[in-house]
Amino acid sequence: MGSGWLASNPMKKFLTLAFAATTALSSPLLAQAAPPESARLRDAALTDDLAWEITEGLTTEIGPRKAGSDAEARARDWAVAKLKALGFANVRVETFEVPYWERGDASAEIVAPFPQPLTLAALGNSGGTGPKGLKAELVGFDSLAALEAADPASIKGKIVFVTHRMAAAQDGSHYGPVGQIRRIGPSIASQKGAAAILIRSIGTDEHRNPHTGSQDWKDGAAPIPALALANPDADQLERVLKRGQPVTIALRVTAKMAGKRTSGNVIAEVPGRDPSLPIVLVGGHLDSWDQGTGAIDDAAGVAITTAAAKRIMDAGQPLRTIRVVWFGSEEIGLFGGVDYREKHKEEKHHFLAESDFGADRIWRFQTSVADAALPAMKPIAAALAPLGIVQGGKNGDASGSDISEIQKLGIPVLALSQDGTRYFDLHHTPDDTLDKVDPAQLRQNVAAWTAMLAVAANDSTDYGPVPPRK
Amino acid sequence: MGSGWLASNPMKKFLTLAFAATTALSSPLLAQAAPPESARLRDAALTDDLAWEITEGLTTEIGPRKAGSDAEARARDWAVAKLKALGFANVRVETFEVPYWERGDASAEIVAPFPQPLTLAALGNSGGTGPKGLKAELVGFDSLAALEAADPASIKGKIVFVTHRMAAAQDGSHYGPVGQIRRIGPSIASQKGAAAILIRSIGTDEHRNPHTGSQDWKDGAAPIPALALANPDADQLERVLKRGQPVTIALRVTAKMAGKRTSGNVIAEVPGRDPSLPIVLVGGHLDSWDQGTGAIDDAAGVAITTAAAKRIMDAGQPLRTIRVVWFGSEEIGLFGGVDYREKHKEEKHHFLAESDFGADRIWRFQTSVADAALPAMKPIAAALAPLGIVQGGKNGDASGSDISEIQKLGIPVLALSQDGTRYFDLHHTPDDTLDKVDPAQLRQNVAAWTAMLAVAANDSTDYGPVPPRK
Repeated sequence: MGSGWLASNPMKKFLTLAFAATTALSSPLLAQAAPPESARLRDAALTDDLAWEITEGLTTEIGPRKAGSDAEARARDWAVAKLKALGFANVRVETFEVPYWERGDASAEIVAPFPQPLTLAALGNSGGTGPKGLKAELVGFDSLAALEAADPASIKGKIVFVTHRMAAAQDGSHYGPVGQIRRIGPSIASQKGAAAILIRSIGTDEHRNPHTGSQDWKDGAAPIPALALANPDADQLERVLKRGQPVTIALRVTAKMAGKRTSGNVIAEVPGRDPSLPIVLVGGHLDSWDQGTGAIDDAAGVAITTAAAKRIMDAGQPLRTIRVVWFGSEEIGLFGGVDYREKHKEEKHHFLAESDFGADRIWRFQTSVADAALPAMKPIAAALAPLGIVQGGKNGDASGSDISEIQKLGIPVLALSQDGTRYFDLHHTPDDTLDKVDPAQLRQNVAAWTAMLAVAANDSTDYGPVPPRK
Repeated sequence: MGSGWLASNPMKKFLTLAFAATTALSSPLLAQAAPPESARLRDAALTDDLAWEITEGLTTEIGPRKAGSDAEARARDWAVAKLKALGFANVRVETFEVPYWERGDASAEIVAPFPQPLTLAALGNSGGTGPKGLKAELVGFDSLAALEAADPASIKGKIVFVTHRMAAAQDGSHYGPVGQIRRIGPSIASQKGAAAILIRSIGTDEHRNPHTGSQDWKDGAAPIPALALANPDADQLERVLKRGQPVTIALRVTAKMAGKRTSGNVIAEVPGRDPSLPIVLVGGHLDSWDQGTGAIDDAAGVAITTAAAKRIMDAGQPLRTIRVVWFGSEEIGLFGGVDYREKHKEEKHHFLAESDFGADRIWRFQTSVADAALPAMKPIAAALAPLGIVQGGKNGDASGSDISEIQKLGIPVLALSQDGTRYFDLHHTPDDTLDKVDPAQLRQNVAAWTAMLAVAANDSTDYGPVPPRK
């Protein structure tokens, strides 16, 4: 550190929170349907600093936390120390094995007709090219459907390019259908004999930051190089192909599978007054993709849920035990959720709730509870309403990533949905860094989770039964 | 090309042009001070497609055009073919030699206390680390002044980090002072014995896209590795340093000087009715940095000025010859401007005008002319006003990059200033790609240049004399 060092805050260019987050909402002049204690805790949470501290700490002191990596192991140690220091009970790690994929290096260039480099990133489980790389003709498709319909003879030995665009949506609902290009496109290309596949990034930005993500080789498809182009590079390939000349691409990818590694879930608890009652499970995932530091995906998620649970703990013992889970190896296939389900299937859970959609303002409250429990949702909705959050969707829609695996046991779910309009600008890119988290919106998240837990962890009503998730 | 291929336009998320670009402005109901012909040509230019065609073609069919590279040579061939096809006269290349710097590869990581990779790019003329790389302690400074004031003993053998922030400004005026960190910071660090220098990118964005740029080794400073961190990575290093523990960085940089290469200016003309009159010079630069495809820096500049000159040519022979110059090797030190000055110093020029600040809306018209010529600026200002452009600054302020070298001959300059608010989000990054150019704003640029040329190339008034630029 040299002389003249000055403290400086990250510039917040993108975001201002129109919602005046620190205004006291539970004025005595406003009659409310929410229990007074939940309103008090909610409003106090609008000054929360813990969620920022956790998000900043994890992304700075660990950085990227790829599933199964040494960094993920360091992150577990970091999490255990932090959760113990915060006063949580029963802090422990439950480990499990995961397949480990090494990213290695990836580079590509247009060889002809217009020589120039391309920016791309290997997708999870991508195969490699060998050290010499490969050179082949490009064949373009504007959708997964077009690839599915293609004659294998038109693909064999070529590099497939699929360029379907994704649009931003508040609920992120385009990720399901458009994301299929990443999830099954590589397998289809492989099965049709392609030498490699390049997809347009599953993302909504216009930066030279490709979006990585998981995919599995289905139905015995042989691994081939499978990569995502940054969106401007996909634009460029479209323009080049439109010239109508044959396009040759050179590709060098050293990605490979590298055996098994240890991953794990970090678990902590706020013990309830009545240990015989089914418990509340909240959390997010500790691992991240390796290109960014996993700030919005998902340091913020573990931070928000932990900060809310800490506020409930500090306010006095809740009726039910609240279990906080920082899941491991979510990104490569929900391994943490599966491991938790298998190890805790005999335990009774009141409901599950997960934060894994960034840290922008929460706008919606959703449920997957028994119809008979819908009246019990009303005080939760009432506690959330002053934060600009409305109950929405149909009962049964609420889910999550890791908890989707645990839902297979037949457990109710509550969900607080962040605004996802810009989430897929950043998701799985090098750009998922701390500066993308807005402290004011992060506090609104903590307030919402605190309000929900203040009501639901003190509610003796059953939220189930619900059918096991298929 | 597979089946099902669909044409699709690049999504334009960032920009809409509030100014209704295609509205006919010279309604007979509006009396104007501008010559009627200039108003007619200006309004017709609001439907221009040529500037887009050139920008799209150069960035797609050539891509990055680094000074002295094979790609820059291909770009000269492309330019000659395009300018001939457009009907310009006297199309030719004037070549010159430039020193060639190879970027090679660059990677860096925090080794301790928090192991993680960093995103960075070598600056022009950066030295290398040798194949084994180097590992050293980091010492941080919040400004160039702090580095200048530092005791060499505190720097010797260490990696210097300078993290002064740049803010966006419509006129880009922060680039001068903040950019000094890039221009002279490496030399100062070298002279104080630093092993290497990392600077915060000279840029205003928050993406993992480092900003490269030129710097020279001053006063015999020995080349050392000199690199720019992406802004989120500079944020990260600041946070890491604030923890107060020693920070060790590992660096591997293979950049090196690689002899001389040929570069050149591409020149074309619209012959005037009176060849005895001093000529008009307009242009931009053909070369680009290698990380992006040089869309805003400066394919747009050569495209805008060429499209405007073409419109004047097609409207009938102007009084004065208009010379269009696509300068070579601007990025590494204004080599094209210097070469032009030396080869054309005996020729008389009416004025110089350069477009090298992107393609966002032009908001200001500036002059460097004789005071006696200020009345002759009035019809130009009048022709520009309907486009939302006002005359500003003080007479004498107008300049440019390559033309700053030619101004040393004592030649008047006219300048049309683009809105630079987001220019330094993109400048010298991988993100300088075609999708960042808004076709509607590009047309407003062509209309402004057309209006200016329609008046000024038909004006027999002298705009000089002006003193040679220092």
